[in-house]
Amino acid sequence: MANKPSIPKGTRDFGPDEMAKRNYIFDTIKSVYALYGFQQIETPAMETLQTLMGKYGEEGDKLLFKILNSGDFLKSTTDEELLARNPLKLQTKLSEKGLRYDLTVPFARYVVMHREELQMPFKRYQIQPVWRADRPQKGRYREFYQCDADIVGSDSLLNEVELMQIIDTVFTKFGIRVQIEINNRKILSGIAEVIGEQEKIVQITTAIDKLDKIGLEAVNAELEKEGLSKASIEKLQPIIQLSGSNDDKLNTIAEVLANSETGLKGVEETRYILDVLKQIELKNEIQLDLTLARGLNYYTGAIFEVKALDVEIGSITGGGRYDNLTGIFGMPNLSGVGFSFGADRIYDVLNTLDLYPKESISDTQLLFINFGDKETSYVLPFVAKARQANIRTEIFPDAAKMKKQMAYANAKHIPFVVLAGDNEIEQGKVTLKNMNTGEQILVSPDDLIEKVTSSNP
Amino acid sequence: MANKPSIPKGTRDFGPDEMAKRNYIFDTIKSVYALYGFQQIETPAMETLQTLMGKYGEEGDKLLFKILNSGDFLKSTTDEELLARNPLKLQTKLSEKGLRYDLTVPFARYVVMHREELQMPFKRYQIQPVWRADRPQKGRYREFYQCDADIVGSDSLLNEVELMQIIDTVFTKFGIRVQIEINNRKILSGIAEVIGEQEKIVQITTAIDKLDKIGLEAVNAELEKEGLSKASIEKLQPIIQLSGSNDDKLNTIAEVLANSETGLKGVEETRYILDVLKQIELKNEIQLDLTLARGLNYYTGAIFEVKALDVEIGSITGGGRYDNLTGIFGMPNLSGVGFSFGADRIYDVLNTLDLYPKESISDTQLLFINFGDKETSYVLPFVAKARQANIRTEIFPDAAKMKKQMAYANAKHIPFVVLAGDNEIEQGKVTLKNMNTGEQILVSPDDLIEKVTSSNP
Repeated sequence: MANKPSIPKGTRDFGPDEMAKRNYIFDTIKSVYALYGFQQIETPAMETLQTLMGKYGEEGDKLLFKILNSGDFLKSTTDEELLARNPLKLQTKLSEKGLRYDLTVPFARYVVMHREELQMPFKRYQIQPVWRADRPQKGRYREFYQCDADIVGSDSLLNEVELMQIIDTVFTKFGIRVQIEINNRKILSGIAEVIGEQEKIVQITTAIDKLDKIGLEAVNAELEKEGLSKASIEKLQPIIQLSGSNDDKLNTIAEVLANSETGLKGVEETRYILDVLKQIELKNEIQLDLTLARGLNYYTGAIFEVKALDVEIGSITGGGRYDNLTGIFGMPNLSGVGFSFGADRIYDVLNTLDLYPKESISDTQLLFINFGDKETSYVLPFVAKARQANIRTEIFPDAAKMKKQMAYANAKHIPFVVLAGDNEIEQGKVTLKNMNTGEQILVSPDDLIEKVTSSNP
Repeated sequence: MANKPSIPKGTRDFGPDEMAKRNYIFDTIKSVYALYGFQQIETPAMETLQTLMGKYGEEGDKLLFKILNSGDFLKSTTDEELLARNPLKLQTKLSEKGLRYDLTVPFARYVVMHREELQMPFKRYQIQPVWRADRPQKGRYREFYQCDADIVGSDSLLNEVELMQIIDTVFTKFGIRVQIEINNRKILSGIAEVIGEQEKIVQITTAIDKLDKIGLEAVNAELEKEGLSKASIEKLQPIIQLSGSNDDKLNTIAEVLANSETGLKGVEETRYILDVLKQIELKNEIQLDLTLARGLNYYTGAIFEVKALDVEIGSITGGGRYDNLTGIFGMPNLSGVGFSFGADRIYDVLNTLDLYPKESISDTQLLFINFGDKETSYVLPFVAKARQANIRTEIFPDAAKMKKQMAYANAKHIPFVVLAGDNEIEQGKVTLKNMNTGEQILVSPDDLIEKVTSSNP
């Protein structure tokens, strides 16, 4: 016994300060979700392997944490199977449950199981941890929270518009300046279609993305290396050198894609979203970016990502429209659009820019120093009164040395301390000390409440 | 593919209505914890088996969910070990992590690992799910939330007093009438000591507990059957027939325990707690109950439990003082006192008594009906204005049939709906319909905000 304890690698304890900051992030996001009529759900940490396996590719299957069956977990394996020592085969015999890998598959499973009760369009959000047996590294954990919102059962582009508004509102509340980048899977398909290179979208966007860094000639050389014909590369030039306002860009793209029905549909969708957003006037800039190409196989319409302008950290939010969330569970053609806030990265950005509002991370406002039983009896009604006035209040439980009690107040950043000895008891008052200024004043119970309430977050 | 999806037995999905109610419970508890200066922490869902095993008894070890090691999980087992098919031995080779079984062991582990950073006394709360491979049955789940608060690093009985206040405040906020039952492990030890039956505390309290049901003679008969001597049973009579006020009871017990130092210490502790609480005046009754004997091996001082008065459901909250939380991790003599709200049972009680405040479970307050693109353009500024005024607002994303949109409003219990067609557009106003009364009025944007804000939770 008495081993030095540790936690599994890639996992974290969140202490009081971190929790206060995380709660600020989640509470802010939740309040905006609610403002837009999204409803919260939660699903179990464990899902059946039948639900999870095959949904995240071969690599994903490996990264699922699997739960060993309870009791005699060997009972459905033969000696031969054991001695064959094939982990992939054996794990399906030893385990029938796994830990949630993301929130999307459990959400799809939820929608299918609860289809009869759900009122469409269903706007849900979900904030829960997920687990992945990834190799831990800086900024990558084996347990982390996802923070998803989706609208399913509606094809309307108003949904995309509202998601952009939510993003804009959330980051405005945080005080993080961001750029929202938007693209459309149909535009990308259109480009590939027009130049006759349907299979090469990823290579094309990857090459275009390097324009700023390596210049036009190098981009074209890379495209040639990828096997694109001279004619195709020629056709791509207006796309590679796309510039100007979002409207300018859309006009250029529409010309290039004149012969692609799908491509023009993508232009039209993007134009609608941007036009409606113009009326609404976002606080942050939204920019059409053709090099944005996340999760191509999954998304079918608008795709978008958010980048912080003042910190180099990559995408802090992203999502898009998909056409077939629940097909894999036997409920086809359910369209939706959704996105996910990257809570861990937002945490880092807020830390780097020192943007946490003071009131979000302060806790106890008032500490009563403990001088012993008699003094405690005297101050207890004051303590109760302060709490009734919603002041977060503590009384130090032990009559410890003054120094220790003051150290406690300092460590917890408690802004006010109350002292009450014989002198105060005689006058029916207490001494209130402002820990920031050092000022001490003698106050009545009512004045105490008023002082703390008025000068404190 | 396309299998009918399911979730693991003993686990639950929480839909929007359940989540709203659960959030009301947790938010209420959290707000009271914060009012008393408790700070939130979170620990990982997975702990090392070294941390978890041996902490919950042999049965508990079996009920731990174990995580199959990633990759080649067979690599540290020999063929002989595999063929021996001993699940208990093999699991330690196949698994080195398990899911959290409660919040107490992870908290102890946390305190030991973070001892240098923690300011004592450390007042923490923690609200997270735990997992147990118990046989699922009505009201017993394999995944459920615990909701713990503890103060460690202080022996002061003021901590017990504050926990009683927290319990009283939380249930007063919920509107649940409760009785708080208190006892003290030292009193129980004293009784066993005085009658010379140190090993038989559990049997004695179990027998006493039946007094109301089976009567005095039957209780005494049962004690005799348990092997207590006539003399011991004689000595127990004042204890068995204990009645009157808490003070009366304490006086009687003090007489019986006159020769037990431990027993008298228990009486003194209980008297202190009850005396201080008398000054503070709880809203709910607190009653000394000698038959209360939870977790005897773990608790060392005060023990307490809460029972709802208007619903038969057993204990809905409980806890007590312990002397050695962290000894098992090599940090001896850390005393603490803590308790846990039974969130699932509180959920049931609030449901049974229909005590959820309306505003806690309502979400969207205002729905704009969608009549098409032109009308949508017209109402979008109204929608934005409503949200700026913090009204939870939706616009139906599709120009669906009126009937469908109204059904959506009804299903989500949205109290106000806005209609705007040519007539409204001409006048620069909208029609606001109260879904409860059916009343429809023509209003300006400002009036809209005012109407909804003033008549809505």
